[in-house]
Amino acid sequence: MAVRAAVAGASGYAGGEVLRLLLAHPEVEIGALTGNSNAGQRLGALQPHLFPLADRVLQETTPEVLAGHDIVFLALPHGQSAAVAEQLGPDVLVVDMGADFRLKDAADWEAFYGSPHAGTWPYGLPELPGGRAALEGSKRIAVPGCYPTAVSLALFPAYEAGLVESEAVIVAASGTSGAGKAAKPHLLGSEVMGNMSPYGVGGGHRHTPEMIQNLSAAAGERVTVSFTPTLAPMPRGILATCSAKAKVGVTAESVRAAYEKAYADEPFVHLLPEGQWPATAAVYGSNAVQVQVAYDAAAGRVIVISAIDNLTKGTAGGAVQSMNIALGLDETTGLSTIGVAP
Amino acid sequence: MAVRAAVAGASGYAGGEVLRLLLAHPEVEIGALTGNSNAGQRLGALQPHLFPLADRVLQETTPEVLAGHDIVFLALPHGQSAAVAEQLGPDVLVVDMGADFRLKDAADWEAFYGSPHAGTWPYGLPELPGGRAALEGSKRIAVPGCYPTAVSLALFPAYEAGLVESEAVIVAASGTSGAGKAAKPHLLGSEVMGNMSPYGVGGGHRHTPEMIQNLSAAAGERVTVSFTPTLAPMPRGILATCSAKAKVGVTAESVRAAYEKAYADEPFVHLLPEGQWPATAAVYGSNAVQVQVAYDAAAGRVIVISAIDNLTKGTAGGAVQSMNIALGLDETTGLSTIGVAP
Amino acid sequence: MAVRAAVAGASGYAGGEVLRLLLAHPEVEIGALTGNSNAGQRLGALQPHLFPLADRVLQETTPEVLAGHDIVFLALPHGQSAAVAEQLGPDVLVVDMGADFRLKDAADWEAFYGSPHAGTWPYGLPELPGGRAALEGSKRIAVPGCYPTAVSLALFPAYEAGLVESEAVIVAASGTSGAGKAAKPHLLGSEVMGNMSPYGVGGGHRHTPEMIQNLSAAAGERVTVSFTPTLAPMPRGILATCSAKAKVGVTAESVRAAYEKAYADEPFVHLLPEGQWPATAAVYGSNAVQVQVAYDAAAGRVIVISAIDNLTKGTAGGAVQSMNIALGLDETTGLSTIGVAP
Amino acid sequence: MAVRAAVAGASGYAGGEVLRLLLAHPEVEIGALTGNSNAGQRLGALQPHLFPLADRVLQETTPEVLAGHDIVFLALPHGQSAAVAEQLGPDVLVVDMGADFRLKDAADWEAFYGSPHAGTWPYGLPELPGGRAALEGSKRIAVPGCYPTAVSLALFPAYEAGLVESEAVIVAASGTSGAGKAAKPHLLGSEVMGNMSPYGVGGGHRHTPEMIQNLSAAAGERVTVSFTPTLAPMPRGILATCSAKAKVGVTAESVRAAYEKAYADEPFVHLLPEGQWPATAAVYGSNAVQVQVAYDAAAGRVIVISAIDNLTKGTAGGAVQSMNIALGLDETTGLSTIGVAP
Repeated sequence: MAVRAAVAGASGYAGGEVLRLLLAHPEVEIGALTGNSNAGQRLGALQPHLFPLADRVLQETTPEVLAGHDIVFLALPHGQSAAVAEQLGPDVLVVDMGADFRLKDAADWEAFYGSPHAGTWPYGLPELPGGRAALEGSKRIAVPGCYPTAVSLALFPAYEAGLVESEAVIVAASGTSGAGKAAKPHLLGSEVMGNMSPYGVGGGHRHTPEMIQNLSAAAGERVTVSFTPTLAPMPRGILATCSAKAKVGVTAESVRAAYEKAYADEPFVHLLPEGQWPATAAVYGSNAVQVQVAYDAAAGRVIVISAIDNLTKGTAGGAVQSMNIALGLDETTGLSTIGVAP
Repeated sequence: MAVRAAVAGASGYAGGEVLRLLLAHPEVEIGALTGNSNAGQRLGALQPHLFPLADRVLQETTPEVLAGHDIVFLALPHGQSAAVAEQLGPDVLVVDMGADFRLKDAADWEAFYGSPHAGTWPYGLPELPGGRAALEGSKRIAVPGCYPTAVSLALFPAYEAGLVESEAVIVAASGTSGAGKAAKPHLLGSEVMGNMSPYGVGGGHRHTPEMIQNLSAAAGERVTVSFTPTLAPMPRGILATCSAKAKVGVTAESVRAAYEKAYADEPFVHLLPEGQWPATAAVYGSNAVQVQVAYDAAAGRVIVISAIDNLTKGTAGGAVQSMNIALGLDETTGLSTIGVAP
Repeated sequence: MAVRAAVAGASGYAGGEVLRLLLAHPEVEIGALTGNSNAGQRLGALQPHLFPLADRVLQETTPEVLAGHDIVFLALPHGQSAAVAEQLGPDVLVVDMGADFRLKDAADWEAFYGSPHAGTWPYGLPELPGGRAALEGSKRIAVPGCYPTAVSLALFPAYEAGLVESEAVIVAASGTSGAGKAAKPHLLGSEVMGNMSPYGVGGGHRHTPEMIQNLSAAAGERVTVSFTPTLAPMPRGILATCSAKAKVGVTAESVRAAYEKAYADEPFVHLLPEGQWPATAAVYGSNAVQVQVAYDAAAGRVIVISAIDNLTKGTAGGAVQSMNIALGLDETTGLSTIGVAP
Repeated sequence: MAVRAAVAGASGYAGGEVLRLLLAHPEVEIGALTGNSNAGQRLGALQPHLFPLADRVLQETTPEVLAGHDIVFLALPHGQSAAVAEQLGPDVLVVDMGADFRLKDAADWEAFYGSPHAGTWPYGLPELPGGRAALEGSKRIAVPGCYPTAVSLALFPAYEAGLVESEAVIVAASGTSGAGKAAKPHLLGSEVMGNMSPYGVGGGHRHTPEMIQNLSAAAGERVTVSFTPTLAPMPRGILATCSAKAKVGVTAESVRAAYEKAYADEPFVHLLPEGQWPATAAVYGSNAVQVQVAYDAAAGRVIVISAIDNLTKGTAGGAVQSMNIALGLDETTGLSTIGVAP
């Protein structure tokens, strides 16, 4: 087997990361690379770390350029995927790393993204209950947001096992690559180094309804989410600190047991041994997820912390993992659980 | 007026910061500098940024060396302040930047610090209700912990105004200087750069009872605190994300009004204009505190975020501010609200 | 005495830094603040660390706005200072933090900056031979470039004392604030963190002729300079590693003696004790310069290393120091040799 | 084929990196892992990024533990390799990542390392003239130092082609992992973030004689090296700025031609297109080397800049590359030229 994949939006961070992973994937051949504002440029000038592709030239994102591929990865700004996807036939596997097809509720989409809802595709988080079944053989995949990946993997086992109340409180720190490659003053190195700051506080971040969707499904009831994202002085990584009130009768042991059960057979999610805590550096560049749990008896809360690489498991690695399932490949093909550290 | 101050523990980060501030203080003359393991060394080799003191030589921390000063700052490991303080007369102003005299509840002290309780001194957080009165004319000051400073200033107005329920959830990110200057592998630059990680999760951090003490006093009832500290890849700064369930009838306006009232006349605490969020870089090296509030109607929570410099307002700046009050000086003498940025 | 100063270009890094220093200057009152693209905005939104000026609103850079000040600081893009300066009367002290009036040789200016030469003003590096005399009473000051400041202070004593040959080799690392606040993709935090890279290699950097001008003057002969600047993952600071072949008879002792003599009475330049090396962190936010020398007998070279804060001594601090001299104030007024560390 | 490799010193940075690479090597099976002070600990606690080896337990470094392997990697402190190597039979491939067997000149060794010279092994820098031949079939490999790798690859083509004079001037910036994992105060994150500083200035760094050895061999005459290493605020990477006086008749074209010839067929060394400069971020975690050249006519110097990952190509990647040659495998087996960026 050898499938041929195009990447639309190859000059950005998500596009670059999916190329980094596909270069190491034994079953995928890299086809067309597109990027509208950068069309005509060598990839070596835009993504100097992808040496084997340095002499590739970016093309425009047109149906003609994307034609003839088995898979098309879309790494486009929110709202642009639907128009491109429509032009791709039903036999092409389309993997959207944007937000366009993640939300089931059209009202949520419109409230948070301000444009008409394009629909819902199978959701690329295989670890969720029923997650793999939804992806097998699918020709369309909506890759989850980076924060929802970290948060859903941290909290869904607690909700699935009925351990916690329906109000979740989440504070997450993200590396700056999560904000993309478009040059904005507040993302300059001079501004972000030595600096921690929040944004989208008070419920306004677009990933909030996606978290609610995932956690509510696991809980079987509506879960509310108080989500505060913060920008951390590092290029990659998300550390999500998640908590909810423990239900009566919950113990440290019952919490741990639920997570051991949920993640016993997961190839990428590692429930750490007791006493060890997640660290974003440990999953740098890898598709691994580190998870650890605590029960704070005095505060009556279950605290779950997860660490991912926002570009790998949080975006492009999750995309490749879901692609593997859709294609019937071993889910871990071409993906690694080994971080680059220190 | 010119008072003479000694600093015990001048080779560490807290000691260095208090010296940096005292060098700019018009009413204080710097006397003896001590540091046991570094006694005999030039300060220029240990604190190369303090150029005017470069040729000073550290002495041993003995009663003889500390004698003859109007003020003694203690920047010692937890548990060592009481023995030194006992040897200083009742007329000497002793400012303890360690934890020894912060907690009122002996059982809390023993549970979290594992040694006998040494007592309680006036608490050096002037912005708390009654805070200034407790410090005026005092000869003993317990400087608050860095996290309790950031968290108490974020949340006490909400509790004092009766806006929120008694369960607070706090996630804070700290720069590495908060962990001190003792060389430990997990604090190496190679380990912390590019890395976010939590520690003391689940209620175990020693600053938790201090937060509970402050917030409970403001609330007039027992407040529980779920506190998760995280280590951020920056030398200085604390960003504290604090929230609690809003009581019935609370609105965005009532929250903002409570904070405007609480901080209208505070020289160091800045409630930011709506739309602007705290950033640790903005308070780098300054005694300022940035605070912003949000009311998340969907989640039913009040979120308050504060940013401080952990070494300045969080330790040495808070110490000098309280010293000023104790001495009857203008509270802002020698302190700045101007950060060093970018 | 109280002089009134305007700052043209108050929204950028140089403008922000000069405001930070002027806020601490006892003889200067801050007048108009201008910034064309940001005119109408609150300074608090653009420079959140300058809290005392938060409510000031930026105006347009017009003669009317700048009128009525004793001093005008120009923090404008290269090539824009001359037009503004012309409109300011001869009695106004104009301090240009841009490059426009630094170079004496019109051909150099035109070759490196590509526009007509506007002239030459007294050069704001008081430590150079004859430097102070040129500034006393002057109404025009050309503030040196950040790299030329670090490099000239590192090497001029060796050239003045005739210790080294006329070919200097310089490699310097700069923090990202030296590249300014305009948003460019290669200056994004995601790009610069964890990254060292050179630019302007091979003689093309615009600061090269300025270094040659300064060192040639000290040497009394034409000095050539091989200069390689590199971008370092930090917001502030320049570390300049400078070397030249030792002349016959030079010894470690004669090198040290020359620097001890040159810097014995300088308030801001610190020749470090033997065995201690400059570090940019030690001069963070201060006007100090750290210098250290070595004689490598095996390689036959004198190596001199200097560390400055590019925004302070390298730009705005040098500007204020020169302003002090021009005004007849003590040269150190409002300036500090104390860094913010760690 | 499947060979079995042990790693002595598996808890440090070099040991961790060689394990990271061997985990991706299709022909190597990982055997015993040792680490004296950490013997008995789980690798997961010491190297949390190496998830597939998390449950491995470190053993003591004894002949019994190391017996029965085809390959033994030594990642030990300088001076300890000889004693361990002696106990390993002549049929075991011993790859020493320490300095013990790099220098040919016993006097150099003793002057710089202060202990008796243990001998000289085939040198693991295949790109040097004759480099591969020396490694083929060898049972002993001395892995080069990280700085000598970066510097030799930058400069040997210029010396081999007779383009430059015999005095080289080198300034290099290294990430902190080059200083190892032993906890020392000056390597704390609080100290290194935001900081550039030099060390070993004036010819004292132990890698100097190794550079001289390599460059002199290429030049066919004694080359002197003025080498200044600096510590940069990043975990990984070396950027080496190297220059020497151009010989008469040298042009930009002749310089470029020499490098194009030298690196035309090298799988890991990339001479960048004109106008693009090396960046350590582009080779993060990869075995690639970026090289660029410039001829500064005004200064009369050839400048060559290289970027490597100090732990990969600079240590463990170079070790695996050399191992591949010694074993008769394709040289690139298990190694990547793809960096992890941003």
